[in-house]
Amino acid sequence: MCSITNCFQFLYNNQVKIMSSTNGQVIRCKAAVAWEAGKPLVIEEVEVAPPQKMEVRVKILFTSLCHTDVYFWEAKGQNPVFPRILGHEAGGVVESVGEGVTDLQPGDHVLPVFTGECKECAHCKSEESNMCDLLRINTDRGVMLHDQKSRFSINGKPIFHFVGTSTFSEYTVVHVGCLAKINPLAPLDKVCVLSCGISTGLGATLNVAQPKKGSSVAVFGLGAVGLAAAEGARIAGASRIIGVDLNANRFELAKKFGVTEFVNPKDYKKPVQEVIAELTNGGVDRSVECTGHIDAMISAFECVHDGWGVAVLVGVPHKDAVFKTSPMNLLNERTLKGTFFGNYKPRSDIPSVVEKYMNKELELEKFITHEVPFSEINKAFELMLKGEGLRCIIHMDA
Amino acid sequence: MCSITNCFQFLYNNQVKIMSSTNGQVIRCKAAVAWEAGKPLVIEEVEVAPPQKMEVRVKILFTSLCHTDVYFWEAKGQNPVFPRILGHEAGGVVESVGEGVTDLQPGDHVLPVFTGECKECAHCKSEESNMCDLLRINTDRGVMLHDQKSRFSINGKPIFHFVGTSTFSEYTVVHVGCLAKINPLAPLDKVCVLSCGISTGLGATLNVAQPKKGSSVAVFGLGAVGLAAAEGARIAGASRIIGVDLNANRFELAKKFGVTEFVNPKDYKKPVQEVIAELTNGGVDRSVECTGHIDAMISAFECVHDGWGVAVLVGVPHKDAVFKTSPMNLLNERTLKGTFFGNYKPRSDIPSVVEKYMNKELELEKFITHEVPFSEINKAFELMLKGEGLRCIIHMDA
Ligand SMILES: NC(=O)c1ccc[n+]([C@@H]2O[C@H](COP(=O)([O-])OP(=O)(O)OC[C@H]3O[C@@H](n4cnc5c(N)ncnc54)[C@H](O)[C@@H]3O)[C@@H](O)[C@H]2O)c1
Ligand SMILES: NC(=O)c1ccc[n+]([C@@H]2O[C@H](COP(=O)([O-])OP(=O)(O)OC[C@H]3O[C@@H](n4cnc5c(N)ncnc54)[C@H](O)[C@@H]3O)[C@@H](O)[C@H]2O)c1
Ligand SMILES: [Zn+2]
Ligand SMILES: [Zn+2]
Ligand SMILES: [Zn+2]
Ligand SMILES: [Zn+2]
Repeated sequence: MCSITNCFQFLYNNQVKIMSSTNGQVIRCKAAVAWEAGKPLVIEEVEVAPPQKMEVRVKILFTSLCHTDVYFWEAKGQNPVFPRILGHEAGGVVESVGEGVTDLQPGDHVLPVFTGECKECAHCKSEESNMCDLLRINTDRGVMLHDQKSRFSINGKPIFHFVGTSTFSEYTVVHVGCLAKINPLAPLDKVCVLSCGISTGLGATLNVAQPKKGSSVAVFGLGAVGLAAAEGARIAGASRIIGVDLNANRFELAKKFGVTEFVNPKDYKKPVQEVIAELTNGGVDRSVECTGHIDAMISAFECVHDGWGVAVLVGVPHKDAVFKTSPMNLLNERTLKGTFFGNYKPRSDIPSVVEKYMNKELELEKFITHEVPFSEINKAFELMLKGEGLRCIIHMDA
Repeated sequence: MCSITNCFQFLYNNQVKIMSSTNGQVIRCKAAVAWEAGKPLVIEEVEVAPPQKMEVRVKILFTSLCHTDVYFWEAKGQNPVFPRILGHEAGGVVESVGEGVTDLQPGDHVLPVFTGECKECAHCKSEESNMCDLLRINTDRGVMLHDQKSRFSINGKPIFHFVGTSTFSEYTVVHVGCLAKINPLAPLDKVCVLSCGISTGLGATLNVAQPKKGSSVAVFGLGAVGLAAAEGARIAGASRIIGVDLNANRFELAKKFGVTEFVNPKDYKKPVQEVIAELTNGGVDRSVECTGHIDAMISAFECVHDGWGVAVLVGVPHKDAVFKTSPMNLLNERTLKGTFFGNYKPRSDIPSVVEKYMNKELELEKFITHEVPFSEINKAFELMLKGEGLRCIIHMDA
């Protein structure tokens, strides 16, 4: 280990000794509580219980807003679970660890991830899956696995967790399997976006769609996830990257991400899959859907070339959505796949994605279009609802 | 070349010189004509015109019946095209060749294939596809590509072709790209079944589903295609092969094909995908659908394990069928694919599948449960409609 790293490690270890005065105690801190579907979050003082068996309490330093938070806050297409502390894209430092936690210690830099890795189940042992049996995403569960209770409360009344992360709080409790330990030199205000959206889009292309050099890739939805998918296509050497979005404001932004062509389905009378087939002599080699809308999912599938095309679904759909297509589209040798978190295993793989940023293979700055203090977290929701910008970093200590 | 091969070649060349007296002339011969949807075929004397540019006239020696013939004969879920000469699983000998044909000569042993290989289009050049732009299956076209005319007629009135093969005739005309030239030592009364169904099922497993050694595979539909898929699973070293069929008569037959367990959806109240998930701790590693029924296609997809399961569709669906599933089944990292002809390229790959039979890696005899003379071809239809047996070989010269 180089001396600078040792030095940082030393500093953090000491910082932790200070923080560790809270070890085993309830922490009172600020959290943004969603009391009701669609109503602005309210910054409240909450009690955060100490981490239990296999749990870790994390001081969140930066968090950002992903569309999945918005879906569960709106609770239009998803089951309502309130009051709840949302948030799942973040970076923080371990404050204390519960019984049985040996992989992490106070002071470690971590990214919480909405899907976990127990390292023992069939999924964790499979090379292909990252859908851990124990820790995979469960959007309806608002409690911790260990005792089916919440670690958050206000005056003794429980406030529910969200996807095991609840990062819109100064302190949160997370299962150790949902924390990626990363290089402490990595700036948390940048790499926090790797905790969900950017890794999801990047991995959807690099790990799942796997375009060959020189191939054509369509990306549906040019939010942060879609542009990360485009970034993956650029890294893989795609020669054409076709961006599809209903919001024309996205096109200017997308130019920085190597998107070479733009299609707005609103500009055409015919289905966008036909427009893309005409542009590409029968269809694109790969497509990645990052919208969450079922019509875009179907178009993304039907726009890939027969014989070899592969479509990858990423967006979180309305809970009653139904994917419909003619089976002939499949028999004509198209492949349809879906992925959570870009098929990355959070603990095993995310540290190396952070390294890609540290080595300048991957740019993250261009995804960060806004920053707000924690007190103005509702602005991040407004920006996403208006379709402005990509990622808004919320500074917890500001 | 060994002397036996030379000797066979010599015999065939001579036979051909006799046959070649028909070169360039209309041949009058027997063919089984489907005059109307669902009505027994009628053996008629037809005129078969000489092969035109890039076409080959083939003397069919053996043909067999595949369910796809029955679908287009019934024309319930498919467009009616009558009068028509059906048939696409067969083995024969080249009688004469048209202008521009250099790859084949009179006397060559060939298997006609419903999908072709021009060797020049993007699909033929792609490693992944066998869906030749020029010669891929077209079930509605009843004429030859060259001049959009039929080579069959009765008293000057055209009789339509079927998928470019029309093997229910003593002589037929086929595009050179739809003929696999095979080892002349291979017995045509056995290897004729490789011309469609068996290669389709075998390739669906070996080329597309690609089960790993020790994995579990579900096969939907235990007709010849499905049992060939099971044979592929056995060759790949699958440890569990679960056969699914509505017809319990199939189960006894299937035991010869390495199927280890049987599920009849009729025996359960719950959907068969749930039954299979319970049998396999969450789902099979791979499934191959060989029924042509949309409900089986959906079950075959939904019964694969999340995280890594791959489902492959093979059956020819009703033309208005719609594949429907929750997009969550995809996001949970299942893969859905379809294949024509097991992803084999007919000219490049089928000769080596014939060699697998010659080397005894692949058993074909067990697929052949019935044999009839050409005059009794309607018996083959009756057997398939009753779900009896697997392949019925029709002897053209008997
Ligand atoms: N599978 C996973 O692991 C995972 C992880 C993170 C996010 N997500 C999902 O990915 C999706 C994108 O997230 P984001 O944060 O980038 O959201 P975002 O709102 O920033 O971007 C979505 C974009 O899609 C566009 N869009 C919507 N409907 C469209 C349509 N029919 N056709 C074309 N474009 C359309 C919108 O205009 C918007 O620009 C969301 O559904 C989110 O829930 C999934
Ligand atoms: N894609 C291709 O290249 C290709 C090539 C050849 C055949 N096919 C198709 O493959 C399919 C099988 O052909 P075959 O010759 O073996 O037919 P077959 O009739 O001999 O066998 C089909 C079997 O499926 C069973 N079945 C029907 N519905 C079912 C359901 N819902 N659940 C479970 N089992 C069900 C039947 O009882 C029967 O045993 C047909 O659809 C045929 O058209 C496709
Ligand atoms: Zn997210
Ligand atoms: Zn696990
Ligand atoms: Zn067939
Ligand atoms: Zn071709």
